[in-house]
Amino acid sequence: MRRQDELVTNSDAPTATAPQPLGRRLLAELLGTGLLVTVVVGSGIAAADLSPRDTGLQLLENSTATVLGLAVLILMLGPVSGAHFNPVVTVADWFLSRRDLEGFSARHIVPYVAAQSAGAVAGALLANAMFDVGTTFSEHERASGSHLLGEVVATAGLVLLIFALVRTDRTAVVAPAVGAYIGAAYWFTSSTSFANPAVALGRMFSDTFAGIAPTSVPSFVLAQIVGAAIGIVLVLALYPSQAVTPHTHQGEPHA
Amino acid sequence: MRRQDELVTNSDAPTATAPQPLGRRLLAELLGTGLLVTVVVGSGIAAADLSPRDTGLQLLENSTATVLGLAVLILMLGPVSGAHFNPVVTVADWFLSRRDLEGFSARHIVPYVAAQSAGAVAGALLANAMFDVGTTFSEHERASGSHLLGEVVATAGLVLLIFALVRTDRTAVVAPAVGAYIGAAYWFTSSTSFANPAVALGRMFSDTFAGIAPTSVPSFVLAQIVGAAIGIVLVLALYPSQAVTPHTHQGEPHA
Amino acid sequence: MRRQDELVTNSDAPTATAPQPLGRRLLAELLGTGLLVTVVVGSGIAAADLSPRDTGLQLLENSTATVLGLAVLILMLGPVSGAHFNPVVTVADWFLSRRDLEGFSARHIVPYVAAQSAGAVAGALLANAMFDVGTTFSEHERASGSHLLGEVVATAGLVLLIFALVRTDRTAVVAPAVGAYIGAAYWFTSSTSFANPAVALGRMFSDTFAGIAPTSVPSFVLAQIVGAAIGIVLVLALYPSQAVTPHTHQGEPHA
Amino acid sequence: MRRQDELVTNSDAPTATAPQPLGRRLLAELLGTGLLVTVVVGSGIAAADLSPRDTGLQLLENSTATVLGLAVLILMLGPVSGAHFNPVVTVADWFLSRRDLEGFSARHIVPYVAAQSAGAVAGALLANAMFDVGTTFSEHERASGSHLLGEVVATAGLVLLIFALVRTDRTAVVAPAVGAYIGAAYWFTSSTSFANPAVALGRMFSDTFAGIAPTSVPSFVLAQIVGAAIGIVLVLALYPSQAVTPHTHQGEPHA
Repeated sequence: MRRQDELVTNSDAPTATAPQPLGRRLLAELLGTGLLVTVVVGSGIAAADLSPRDTGLQLLENSTATVLGLAVLILMLGPVSGAHFNPVVTVADWFLSRRDLEGFSARHIVPYVAAQSAGAVAGALLANAMFDVGTTFSEHERASGSHLLGEVVATAGLVLLIFALVRTDRTAVVAPAVGAYIGAAYWFTSSTSFANPAVALGRMFSDTFAGIAPTSVPSFVLAQIVGAAIGIVLVLALYPSQAVTPHTHQGEPHA
Repeated sequence: MRRQDELVTNSDAPTATAPQPLGRRLLAELLGTGLLVTVVVGSGIAAADLSPRDTGLQLLENSTATVLGLAVLILMLGPVSGAHFNPVVTVADWFLSRRDLEGFSARHIVPYVAAQSAGAVAGALLANAMFDVGTTFSEHERASGSHLLGEVVATAGLVLLIFALVRTDRTAVVAPAVGAYIGAAYWFTSSTSFANPAVALGRMFSDTFAGIAPTSVPSFVLAQIVGAAIGIVLVLALYPSQAVTPHTHQGEPHA
Repeated sequence: MRRQDELVTNSDAPTATAPQPLGRRLLAELLGTGLLVTVVVGSGIAAADLSPRDTGLQLLENSTATVLGLAVLILMLGPVSGAHFNPVVTVADWFLSRRDLEGFSARHIVPYVAAQSAGAVAGALLANAMFDVGTTFSEHERASGSHLLGEVVATAGLVLLIFALVRTDRTAVVAPAVGAYIGAAYWFTSSTSFANPAVALGRMFSDTFAGIAPTSVPSFVLAQIVGAAIGIVLVLALYPSQAVTPHTHQGEPHA
Repeated sequence: MRRQDELVTNSDAPTATAPQPLGRRLLAELLGTGLLVTVVVGSGIAAADLSPRDTGLQLLENSTATVLGLAVLILMLGPVSGAHFNPVVTVADWFLSRRDLEGFSARHIVPYVAAQSAGAVAGALLANAMFDVGTTFSEHERASGSHLLGEVVATAGLVLLIFALVRTDRTAVVAPAVGAYIGAAYWFTSSTSFANPAVALGRMFSDTFAGIAPTSVPSFVLAQIVGAAIGIVLVLALYPSQAVTPHTHQGEPHA
């Protein structure tokens, strides 16, 4: 390992402030959120097509592809933009690092969310094109009380996980940990864990396995915002100090 | 890597004595044990619902979600409480570190177990609510001679694994290793490896795939206690020294 | 960790210039590409044979074996040859490191590609022999507009992933990351992600689950070349500096 | 990381010569090989019982449990005995380190193999007991030309993988890499990859999914010996130097 290690900060942490130009960061957010939606929608189309007789098997195929794909995308793009790929992560990152001079800047929130949203829609269109499926709005209604509770739980857990790792200087495991979390949440929440307003937006544009009807999106997003707020409260309760404390180890747990 | 590394202890080890306030640690145990039961029960409900024709496929979906979810929960909460989420791990941690001034304190056993138990029940209720399933006691009788032998084996292996890693200073891999262990034990034990009295308690409260009838719980807990005792004996036989010995490497094997 | 760590370079990176003799490197490329095709074709035969009623389940078995096998082969042979196993990776490695005195040498491109191609064919024959399947050309036509788009996307992502990791000095995670990427791409692309001209060549020689008709190979290879070019452009846009910058951390994210 | 790191050797490497008492090492080999057979046989019984309609799904359940369980067992017992769990690994370890004063001692081969064999049989009996299956010899004939070729390939790859990692000082990833390798080899070899004479012996004692008829064992063992010899030749060709060379990096690739 090189000498300069002792000087560097982890650049794939959501709170990293690597002096990458904003344009490059937005390209990374657009590409990453787009490919995430391509993974979710595309593998959903393949699963529904290839395993027509068992919805559970379809979801296992879809969730397995997402575990692997999401971890890889965070590895691929994290050093550029922090690999948020998710508006609630962007906002939470700003909020939790707002007193840190090197924290995520408030004026980057809107461009980040715009890039994520544009990418998500493009990602759905790419999946539709790869699988020769026309682009129409999904008719899959998902909003119900129990599903919205699922989104609250899923998003709270995601925010707590990411910032627990960031605040204990274990950003090197964010990629596999977030992939694993979403893979579990596909199954343990009733909503299959969207936990991401941009991804919910993108998934409107494919009337396939992973689609969501536009009428269900607003309540999903609202539930995600509530979940993110709960997640932030839990971060502050469990990891009150933003700084790396002496009790934080640098060993690298792995998912 | 930072200079102070050389001074820190791994704070997500069961034996870690990070000076976190007790209240925060109990919140972490309650939340972690609760979400673990939510993962197990929730993914069990989803699996049984979505793959109605093949019990093995249901168990594969249930165990895959648990491998991922359990590893993530240990990463998420380990630095706060040690991420026991299991009364037998708490007691074993106290027993094996009782001569260490920084070991787990005996007076924390009861609060830890109480938080784990309360969390486990709440986690089952949350899963029931997310999936719109009423909360009633499970009628799934599981106690049989062969299943109890399964619990003995599962719990002995779990205790040996955790403290083998702790005693060789490889706590950074506890998260993926414990997730992987439980995922294997779902399959290689006949009992699907509860290996955890608090989780067994919680799983009483959902009459679904992962439920257990209250009448089966006492013998399951007894088998788990026997297994934990065997696990402790194996730890003492194979890793007699509590301290980190010169033969212990600090490289990080990964599951 | 040993003292000389501070002096060494990561030898399993595609850009590594470990002074291994060329013959040894070609043996590694031949063996690695061969076993990769054996994994893909062999597990495809097993899957189709053992799960005759669900194509999705066959693909899940095939992709799971590939995730594990590909990661292992990169670990096994990376220190010798860089573990390219793929002509487009070899060419991209040369192109992206061509101004680096220690970069991949242009005069090694042809021998590398020859070893990869010979290995790929031998690997298909080995799989056929292990499963008692005669060696005949595949009749599985795969070339269609949407499948070719899939190959473009799959190859672009693969190139971007590998060189994002190389350029941020995270070569230690190339093995699991590439395995995970291909595993996801089996599902999210319509073409099941060949992303490798040598592997496409080898897969012509088995008329089984993973085979590809010779008539489909030229357009697949062309699509892979287009994808690789897009991947290189994205590398240059997102990671313009070849050198390790101070913002690159050395922590090890894990897939 | 602690200062003494610079002095220690990796104790979970097959070539480690940690001064553990022989009795403790034999206990580790007996326990580890035993539990490995319990994992293979037990999960095979569960899979065949729970997924009666699809042999591929049974094998997926069986191989998934083995990937996880084998990696965990190596983590659990590696620091004590090197976690061979396999006579061909023991012999290869002796052969490849025979000129090293700290290498594996020839006089430990017989006790290691005896402990592995006794453990393997006990592990099968334990699985039978946990699943209430009587212990009778398996009637599952497996010896055929193509299956024996499968065993040759599987064992050669296993030996090459382990000693490639050992000779490049990446022993920290032996656990996940070996688990992943065997998981892939379940699928890409026609024999489902026993690759282990002790495990073959143990699997005779359960007439269930993972069993093997006693009449098939001698030719399987012979094929494994041939494969191990090929693996050793490949190790010597690709990694001729036993010592850690300057080109060997200490970064930790992960499977």
